[in-house]
Amino acid sequence: MKTISSRQNALFKRVRRAIDEHAEEIVMEGPKAIDDAIANGWKPIAVVGREGAPVRGLGGEVLLSAALFDSLASTVTSQGVIALFERPSFGDLFADRDRIIVALDGVQDPGNVGTIVRLAAAFDAGGVVLLPGTADAYSPKSIRASAGAILTVPLASMTGDELLARDWPLFAADANGKAIDPPSRGAVIVFGSEGDGVSPEIAEGATRIAIPMSKRIESLNVASSAAVLLARSYALR
Amino acid sequence: MKTISSRQNALFKRVRRAIDEHAEEIVMEGPKAIDDAIANGWKPIAVVGREGAPVRGLGGEVLLSAALFDSLASTVTSQGVIALFERPSFGDLFADRDRIIVALDGVQDPGNVGTIVRLAAAFDAGGVVLLPGTADAYSPKSIRASAGAILTVPLASMTGDELLARDWPLFAADANGKAIDPPSRGAVIVFGSEGDGVSPEIAEGATRIAIPMSKRIESLNVASSAAVLLARSYALR
Repeated sequence: MKTISSRQNALFKRVRRAIDEHAEEIVMEGPKAIDDAIANGWKPIAVVGREGAPVRGLGGEVLLSAALFDSLASTVTSQGVIALFERPSFGDLFADRDRIIVALDGVQDPGNVGTIVRLAAAFDAGGVVLLPGTADAYSPKSIRASAGAILTVPLASMTGDELLARDWPLFAADANGKAIDPPSRGAVIVFGSEGDGVSPEIAEGATRIAIPMSKRIESLNVASSAAVLLARSYALR
Repeated sequence: MKTISSRQNALFKRVRRAIDEHAEEIVMEGPKAIDDAIANGWKPIAVVGREGAPVRGLGGEVLLSAALFDSLASTVTSQGVIALFERPSFGDLFADRDRIIVALDGVQDPGNVGTIVRLAAAFDAGGVVLLPGTADAYSPKSIRASAGAILTVPLASMTGDELLARDWPLFAADANGKAIDPPSRGAVIVFGSEGDGVSPEIAEGATRIAIPMSKRIESLNVASSAAVLLARSYALR
């Protein structure tokens, strides 16, 4: 198998672009995430190994020199293999009234965004709406945190007005809200930033839900809040 | 106020040691975490600002030159201020049969460990047992993820045998377990590593609890599982 060692190589540049811009193509790191994606029916455009790493027989494999590979990948999580996939596209998130939709409003940490995408898959949400100020869900850090769910969960970037125009019932996670059960279908649950919560235009029309907890701490991490409410919503179906 | 710029300075070396070894003293980063700790009655040994950053009037303040400060702190999260605290010590975690205890078995990621410490505070657990293979809860990354809870949640490092010798009912989070409610008091809930789950010696005597979820994904992040089960346990009290 040929080993690519030039930065001018077209495939190298294409992978680099997918990592930086992730506009039409995205990169997944590590054998587990790649195998999961393939098991879910996704076909990699290319599987890229690090020179000296074992070839995995997945097809479409290419080797990069160690220096070139390390300039691309987070070596901690890639374990010597990354793969290029087409960025998924989906129909309307709001098509299925039997599901809930998750919306993220100013969630800045890409790790939290990816973790919540994973939770959306786990608890069978219709998709995740990314409101302004939310980290890019297709960034490498978010893709990693999604543990493969990034390929299967419909995502849509929207403004607050666009979300409101959908006219679905809105619920907002809010420590000052009421300790009620979350909706189990046909509604949007919005999670805001840890510091500022959900933005006023969204909060105004939303039912605010608090998670019952002790007074030993002020708030939960946003991904923890999402885990609690989405799991409960799913259990109530 | 005097600005310290020598690496030989005793306070600088003491803070450095607390970050590296965190044996008797630990370091918290950022105004929010430090203010929360002080509001909870913790007294900083020293508050250390970055030269040029506003002095905060907390008492015990010292300035470090920018170069010295940046060599210590993660500047992203410190926002120009860190503080040295005594590492907390606690009595027996198992003293209170009205609470649940969280045990972490081979949870390697310090961010997950810190997030679970925060969840233990939120859902009023008696403490967190750190079993072998679990990341150091007093590492800077774990302290950050705990959002201040590291000072208030009793922690204890134990072997599996020591935990078993306590003879409390054991429950283990396990995707292959039964979808039952978690215990609400007088029991230990064990969370294992994402890859391997709970170790066999613990799993053997434990009731295995699964979180109901869709088949769209194989498993949850360990901190997400902890959020779901601890919130549910607290709600059932």
